[in-house]
Amino acid sequence: MATEDKHDDAALVDSGGGAADPVSLEKEFEEMAVPSWRNQITIRSVVVSVILSAVFNVIVCKLNLSTGVIPSLNVAAGLLGFAMVKGWTVLMEKAGYLKQPFTRQENTVIQTCVVASSGIAFSSGTASYLLGMSPITAAQADTGNNPMNIKQLSIGWMMAYLFTVSFLGLFSIVPLRKVMILKYKLTYPSGTATAYLINSFHTPKGAKVAKKKVWVLFKSFVGSFLWACFQWFFNAADGCGFSSFPTFGLGAFNKRFYFDFSATYVGVGMICPYMVNVSLLIGAILSWGILWPIIESKKGDWYSAELPASSLHGIQGYRVFLAIAMMLGDGLYHVVYMLAVTARSFLQHKESANEGTGVDQITDYDERKRTEFFLKDQIPNKVAMGGYVLLAVVSIIVIPLIFHQLKWYQILVAYIIAPILAFCNAYGCGLTDWSLASNYGKIAILVFSSWVGMDQGGVLAGLASCGVMMSIVSTASDLMQDFKTGYLTLSSPRSMFVGQVLGTALGCFMSPLVFWIFYKAYSVGDPTGSYPAPYALMYRGIALLGVEGFSTLPKNCMTLVIVFFIGAVVINIATELLKRYETKYRVYRFVPSPMCMAIPFYLGAYFAVDMCIGSLILFIWEMKNRNGAKEFAPAVASGLICGDSLWGIPAAVLALSGVQAPICMKFLSASANKRVDAFLG
Amino acid sequence: MATEDKHDDAALVDSGGGAADPVSLEKEFEEMAVPSWRNQITIRSVVVSVILSAVFNVIVCKLNLSTGVIPSLNVAAGLLGFAMVKGWTVLMEKAGYLKQPFTRQENTVIQTCVVASSGIAFSSGTASYLLGMSPITAAQADTGNNPMNIKQLSIGWMMAYLFTVSFLGLFSIVPLRKVMILKYKLTYPSGTATAYLINSFHTPKGAKVAKKKVWVLFKSFVGSFLWACFQWFFNAADGCGFSSFPTFGLGAFNKRFYFDFSATYVGVGMICPYMVNVSLLIGAILSWGILWPIIESKKGDWYSAELPASSLHGIQGYRVFLAIAMMLGDGLYHVVYMLAVTARSFLQHKESANEGTGVDQITDYDERKRTEFFLKDQIPNKVAMGGYVLLAVVSIIVIPLIFHQLKWYQILVAYIIAPILAFCNAYGCGLTDWSLASNYGKIAILVFSSWVGMDQGGVLAGLASCGVMMSIVSTASDLMQDFKTGYLTLSSPRSMFVGQVLGTALGCFMSPLVFWIFYKAYSVGDPTGSYPAPYALMYRGIALLGVEGFSTLPKNCMTLVIVFFIGAVVINIATELLKRYETKYRVYRFVPSPMCMAIPFYLGAYFAVDMCIGSLILFIWEMKNRNGAKEFAPAVASGLICGDSLWGIPAAVLALSGVQAPICMKFLSASANKRVDAFLG
Repeated sequence: MATEDKHDDAALVDSGGGAADPVSLEKEFEEMAVPSWRNQITIRSVVVSVILSAVFNVIVCKLNLSTGVIPSLNVAAGLLGFAMVKGWTVLMEKAGYLKQPFTRQENTVIQTCVVASSGIAFSSGTASYLLGMSPITAAQADTGNNPMNIKQLSIGWMMAYLFTVSFLGLFSIVPLRKVMILKYKLTYPSGTATAYLINSFHTPKGAKVAKKKVWVLFKSFVGSFLWACFQWFFNAADGCGFSSFPTFGLGAFNKRFYFDFSATYVGVGMICPYMVNVSLLIGAILSWGILWPIIESKKGDWYSAELPASSLHGIQGYRVFLAIAMMLGDGLYHVVYMLAVTARSFLQHKESANEGTGVDQITDYDERKRTEFFLKDQIPNKVAMGGYVLLAVVSIIVIPLIFHQLKWYQILVAYIIAPILAFCNAYGCGLTDWSLASNYGKIAILVFSSWVGMDQGGVLAGLASCGVMMSIVSTASDLMQDFKTGYLTLSSPRSMFVGQVLGTALGCFMSPLVFWIFYKAYSVGDPTGSYPAPYALMYRGIALLGVEGFSTLPKNCMTLVIVFFIGAVVINIATELLKRYETKYRVYRFVPSPMCMAIPFYLGAYFAVDMCIGSLILFIWEMKNRNGAKEFAPAVASGLICGDSLWGIPAAVLALSGVQAPICMKFLSASANKRVDAFLG
Repeated sequence: MATEDKHDDAALVDSGGGAADPVSLEKEFEEMAVPSWRNQITIRSVVVSVILSAVFNVIVCKLNLSTGVIPSLNVAAGLLGFAMVKGWTVLMEKAGYLKQPFTRQENTVIQTCVVASSGIAFSSGTASYLLGMSPITAAQADTGNNPMNIKQLSIGWMMAYLFTVSFLGLFSIVPLRKVMILKYKLTYPSGTATAYLINSFHTPKGAKVAKKKVWVLFKSFVGSFLWACFQWFFNAADGCGFSSFPTFGLGAFNKRFYFDFSATYVGVGMICPYMVNVSLLIGAILSWGILWPIIESKKGDWYSAELPASSLHGIQGYRVFLAIAMMLGDGLYHVVYMLAVTARSFLQHKESANEGTGVDQITDYDERKRTEFFLKDQIPNKVAMGGYVLLAVVSIIVIPLIFHQLKWYQILVAYIIAPILAFCNAYGCGLTDWSLASNYGKIAILVFSSWVGMDQGGVLAGLASCGVMMSIVSTASDLMQDFKTGYLTLSSPRSMFVGQVLGTALGCFMSPLVFWIFYKAYSVGDPTGSYPAPYALMYRGIALLGVEGFSTLPKNCMTLVIVFFIGAVVINIATELLKRYETKYRVYRFVPSPMCMAIPFYLGAYFAVDMCIGSLILFIWEMKNRNGAKEFAPAVASGLICGDSLWGIPAAVLALSGVQAPICMKFLSASANKRVDAFLG
């Protein structure tokens, strides 16, 4: 379960690219001209993007249908994109045909495009909500197996549906890029890491510090890759291997407190601010250490004792809904606060672009240069908003044609709420690297299936609305990651945006196509076959819960949801007040972030432990050598993230070709071990 | 099995104490006067030694009787000795009563004494050969359960027997100390490590480099201790935990090729010369990688396929006897070579003490100072040899009175051969830190039980001779380790020797006493009880094999034994010739040592892997910072060894109080895992 969730969400964590905080990186790049945004998108980059998109779509689709565990492919996209174009340009250069040098901006565009496309392979839900509509899946559930609630899959309507819903996310979040990147300075750890990688590929010759950084990155990259490879051998089945290591004992492991030896999250922890990691840990302790055990002690009273652990009617319901409540509270506070600030500045006759302008006042060379390029090519807010409205209108017309169970006003409501959720997700992802798009999708299922009701085809309506919501929320955080990458590689926001649009289009075309091939060739969805697609039934199960209404939530869950929602808002207000009026000790720095605290509510503490270990490493390093840590920590962190991610490719190839790891490193209690020994001996 | 052997032998690896190779350590100690050898033995040190001896005897005895796995306790001895006396002196100092400051020499004497005493707790065989004589054990074997071959245990004759046989080892090896320590400069890694620890405890204030070293040592010590502690939690039963980690796959693990995460052996590898570690690895590959698989393919032809894997009639026979052959070949070569050199120098009217004298020519300050103190208090060879002969005569008279199955001339033969074996073992231990005393003891069982024969009480004769041989061989390597410690802490060889004599006496008194308490209180030797004493039956089994004669060895084993014996001699001669005539490339440096190659024959490659990893760490460190590595590597290595060893105390306490580790980290093949999952689920 933990693994599922992790990778499920990890797949949505998009990393753009772009360099972390090197002291004078841009000075080293000074001699290299930044091409205009049109020249950042070249024919060769489009060709490479198409090829890589195809490859990644096949991989993601196949993994989706077999286990549902999908590694993050961003780094691989950056790396393979570099390798292919570099190979090509070196060839052309030798032949004397090279017209345009290969730039890091071009590299970033390829990466963005490929990630967008393989992001669609996930958010298209071919293995979750779309497949959940099929008669095959419906036959496996207790109720809802009736014509109103099933839909025969067909490549035609699937492609049309995806093209209709997938582009809205891009337009929804674009106007906020300056706030997120320049004002809030969100980290977007894996985006930062990939950017660092791309920058290091393109470091000009003769740059000494940069070279040393590349070398450090390379070592950490190779180490992390080999470590991931080593881990693979001990991971023969679920519950095996280092990712199930009960580092703090089996009791703590059952409460999801353990260090799972993930180099990725240690690296992410090194990039994230200390307070983010501490907040995660506090959240984990609060929920898994205190709250859940208390609620579990009410088992049989607050909720039925006979429910499986994964039922949303039981303890899992508290986990999911309290997490969502806290995130919504935090997210909404920020939306409202931002709107208020914007409104005030508007009333005072200042331009709203104000936040991003004071470029000349920025003293740091790199930051000034990056801000300058980030603000150079504008995407007017009118275009973004107009695009969003236009696409929404199209969607409101088209979707009821595909799913007559959904009414136009329901889709309108979805499109009114979606940007807020998209902002929340992009904001949280910027802080912590976790995208929770699939959770927002699940909430949409609940809301809409309950709204429509079983008799009106609520199950199908819920699943269809999941796609509407998930693709917006997911794409939004992806795009913002990419903007961060673009910011750090001096890529134009406009070329990034075009790259995303292109990638999304590729994804909408390829994802149903690849799925269709599998669907026709194999018995997809058969629980005993090679392609059981475990998420299809799970998503349908949520819809079935939805049609029964929110009243079926466990006892006191709604009360707690309200408490946590208000709590999140209160914490934010308190922080703001402290920031303003208590300037002596700057206590506000030690107030944990509700958004961060909420994530482990649902997932558990393991990744918080990883990230805190990353913090600890950084802290010790800074104690020993402040400057060295500042210079090289981002390189080490990026190497850790990228090496671990890159192993995803060979691991996927192994999984696809049916190669199983030879060893299971299993963790048994002493008594279970005795029984097993007796059984084996 | 591997674990058994390891700890079995590890318990015999005595570490003295004394510092590794610090650049100017002795200059920092210059202000501190070295007391005369008599003043190195104080009343307080004797009191502390007696207390610690008692504690350690109880621990070793109880462990011996329960699992037979005994950690190395030397470091703990050094540490606890320091803590107790230091506490005492600080108290006295505050009260104004302190007459004599606490010196590192005094500390070394305590350590030596305690280790000697707990060494006897092991080599006294209360859980192996002595218990093997008892009717309880005899009843568990197929044959030999007759009055001639059993002996009722009684504290009286056991104590008398131990006092008779245990002191000869001390005298047998004393004359060779200068050759081993000064001429061959053998490392005795754990002795060196403990010495380093003791030196660091007593570093004078204001010594800056030394302080930094102490700090490095402390960090590595704490890290290693915590690591050992962490490992403990995952080691609920045999075959669990990091010590069974199939690092290179299950196939390699079954051939005993794996990294067992032992900080001790990584540290030992950092102290040992590269060539020692490489030799170990070559030996492991040669035997476990090539030779044993070939022999195992002859199963059913060369030896019966129905034998258990541990039978000396099967593959285990090849392992044990080929290892012994190669060690004997190497050891004998050195004995003969040394005798030849001594004889020649005698003929040339030079004094044989020549080797050790050229003190003035030594340029290194530390080395000169240490050599000077090492040579200051002599133990005349006449005393040593006279003592040996006298004790042997006593033994020859007394032992047949206790065991009428052994004749005086048989014991005489044992005492003629023993010093050679003692030399071999002390030499090998100096090179590799492995003492193989228990193996020599087993060989003695074989030889003497076959010589005497079943009808004449060969089983009992064999077991009794095991004690004769084992105590000499074991004590000899212990003493030499202590001399190394003494050398490195400027302790007088004479005070060390007295410390050993005292410790041995304490051991001979306490070991049977403690055993007797257990023996009377519990059903010791009952395989289903809390104190099964597994080694008792194993040793008796070897004796039973012996009475059937060497002709029962598996096919071609004798031929191979001869080949390997000659091979070891040839390699040594080749090395000597290369050393003399090929001085250009100094190829001789790359000839592996037969002694080192032989050890993994029997034990497997795992500790060779550990040690090679130690070498690798050192190599990389030296590449990066040659001086830093030279300065601090011994500190790190000592910390690793000492921290790991010190965990032995709490681990023993936990084992004694019946606390089991909570988790078993188990390694299953993918198929076995499937079955186990089905079984558990």
